[in-house]
Amino acid sequence: MKPLGPIPPHFASAGNDLLIGGRTAQSLAEAHGTPLFVYDAGAVRARVAALRAALPARIRLHYAVKANPFGPLLALLDGLVDGFDIASAGELAIIAAQGIDPARAGFAGPGKRDSELAAAIAAGVTLHCESAREVERALAVAPSAGKRARLAIRVNPDFDLRGSGMKMGGGARQFGLDAERVPELARHIAHSEAEWRGFHIFAGSQALDADAVIATQAATLELAARLAGEAGVDLPALNLGGGFGIPYFPGDMPLDLAKVGAALAERLADLPPVMAQTALTVELGRYLVGEAGVYLTRVIERKESRGEVFLVTDGGMHHQLAASGNFGTVVRRNYPLAIADRMAEPVAEAASVVGCLCTPLDRLAEKAGLPRADEGDLVAVFCAGAYGATASPSAFLGHGPATEILVDSNA
Amino acid sequence: MKPLGPIPPHFASAGNDLLIGGRTAQSLAEAHGTPLFVYDAGAVRARVAALRAALPARIRLHYAVKANPFGPLLALLDGLVDGFDIASAGELAIIAAQGIDPARAGFAGPGKRDSELAAAIAAGVTLHCESAREVERALAVAPSAGKRARLAIRVNPDFDLRGSGMKMGGGARQFGLDAERVPELARHIAHSEAEWRGFHIFAGSQALDADAVIATQAATLELAARLAGEAGVDLPALNLGGGFGIPYFPGDMPLDLAKVGAALAERLADLPPVMAQTALTVELGRYLVGEAGVYLTRVIERKESRGEVFLVTDGGMHHQLAASGNFGTVVRRNYPLAIADRMAEPVAEAASVVGCLCTPLDRLAEKAGLPRADEGDLVAVFCAGAYGATASPSAFLGHGPATEILVDSNA
Repeated sequence: MKPLGPIPPHFASAGNDLLIGGRTAQSLAEAHGTPLFVYDAGAVRARVAALRAALPARIRLHYAVKANPFGPLLALLDGLVDGFDIASAGELAIIAAQGIDPARAGFAGPGKRDSELAAAIAAGVTLHCESAREVERALAVAPSAGKRARLAIRVNPDFDLRGSGMKMGGGARQFGLDAERVPELARHIAHSEAEWRGFHIFAGSQALDADAVIATQAATLELAARLAGEAGVDLPALNLGGGFGIPYFPGDMPLDLAKVGAALAERLADLPPVMAQTALTVELGRYLVGEAGVYLTRVIERKESRGEVFLVTDGGMHHQLAASGNFGTVVRRNYPLAIADRMAEPVAEAASVVGCLCTPLDRLAEKAGLPRADEGDLVAVFCAGAYGATASPSAFLGHGPATEILVDSNA
Repeated sequence: MKPLGPIPPHFASAGNDLLIGGRTAQSLAEAHGTPLFVYDAGAVRARVAALRAALPARIRLHYAVKANPFGPLLALLDGLVDGFDIASAGELAIIAAQGIDPARAGFAGPGKRDSELAAAIAAGVTLHCESAREVERALAVAPSAGKRARLAIRVNPDFDLRGSGMKMGGGARQFGLDAERVPELARHIAHSEAEWRGFHIFAGSQALDADAVIATQAATLELAARLAGEAGVDLPALNLGGGFGIPYFPGDMPLDLAKVGAALAERLADLPPVMAQTALTVELGRYLVGEAGVYLTRVIERKESRGEVFLVTDGGMHHQLAASGNFGTVVRRNYPLAIADRMAEPVAEAASVVGCLCTPLDRLAEKAGLPRADEGDLVAVFCAGAYGATASPSAFLGHGPATEILVDSNA
């Protein structure tokens, strides 16, 4: 039997029924069909509240749209966070469609096309420029965009986020400008037609170790101050990146948010003068919405093959690539998963939960200890709120995308 | 420097320009924009012709739609192959939309919904049933579908395809019915209201070793004969699976098709009486279209970071998940790739080709030996004809899907 990841603690059950946003998973599946992504507005609100309580009041919270661009979720977040981070003109259109003011957004990402730069400038988005060449292109397109470009520099730091799931800094990278080349470019922007907006320093993501996050934030503040000093420019804004991880796998422990917040407060009490007025932002995607989402899929068949049990579902890796172990993971481990209509039943067997795709890659859980489940039962895959629906190959094998809904027990 | 995979030998250049279907990659990119999938009809025809020449005339060729469901490609294949294999009701709708007769199709895949079974039966599709329960469900829905169900059994063999990229048989599997339980179910179908259509035995995919394919085909024929004999049923049809691989990575050698064909001819000369009239099918997806496709993406920026060169393109893993190393591969290796407008230039440097997604997973080639390329140059990723556009998370980060075109120098 292989262990399952930890179910996020905010989920409760009523008898055998998993509750999501105050409703049973079964009733949601009946009303909306399966496979179904359900995002719990209350869990997102609670997460933002926990962040506001733990982090110094001066810290601005941004939501990284790439984690989950579902419209109603963005509309909810619009009332909760201080801004948005986008990574394409497509994401700019997505936030604009939700009525979100693009002037509250930053745009980072390598390979921005001229048309994307122009659209962002016209909309008042702050560009986190990844290179000197990108700054040059942004300044060149700005006049035709009819607006003053708002330019920040994305810095490739000379450190990374220790223990992070994905390193985005340190060494040679496609992201950002190498730190050592930043001062010259910062001066150039500050003396250009553009509005100088400071730095964006993103060292990694999905870290569960508070000490690693604390060390990275300290190094980020120090690097930003040093670079601004060397450049002789002021520092209107600094995006400190994010990197706050969520527990996916057996043994993962939640990030100690209070510890991160306390350490950050200490740092803020001791900032150099160049940062006295700097708008400090933490950018989070997965940490805000990941644990708020559940993917529900129905068991089409219970199958036994040579002594092993397979629960064949109507969902799969075309919606849950990461849970299948095919998205940036080397060793496949089980996500948190449960039989959503048998929550009170004891573990009865080892079962593999697979999807309906005709490929052996399509596994949602491997030899997991589960109650005995049968045709018609409902499987819940947790931690499905981020990098699920849009980070999966939904056209693969023609089953099409899953329905997504936001449930709100307060609404 | 890390080596690149081998460029399929049918591609030629005119000076610096890569040719695809008789046209320059540059002209195609200018006419249709980038990123762009280009499928070469001539390459598909040549591949089918090579198969017809190598394999015994009795072997029927099927195309596995999952490899690439692009409409014009399906329409082309409709005139070249003897049938189609689909894996969902979605794929049934896709072939029907191309005017392909669904009676020429087989439907395999775990987790077929009742609605999918009904749609397939109504359309005359042969169902490759994955379990006794699925046969039961098919027989139950058939009356309402208004047609006699055509049922075959997908067999989970007690062997796998040695050296295959993906094992689909042997041991406990979600695919097919364990061989030892097949005779009873075969008898049941043969004596039911349904039309008995024989077996489907798929032991693995992406094998480059002719001896492994030969051994699997021999074992498949033997198993099918034995199971039919034990069941005391005739064997109207047998899908031998596919598994023919294509070279993706450095050192990969093409499958020796002549050797496979010669061995199969020997086997067919010596078949038991139960197979005298059996329709024998080889089902291929990747092998038919994989090498016919090229993914073209434009360099947005040439970037140097701490001594390394990055070519940042307007494409990426949202269209080419497999090339990025995030689709069923443990160790990332480079696909074949070239600078499509500098084909005659010598290797000048090691460069990493990355996409425009804001994630370090988005790499199309790592430290590849390439001519010096710059902003505006065109990158060609080869072997992009199968498991590309639809097997990638095209909604990720909002850049949207790539355009796809079929070029035909004979048209």
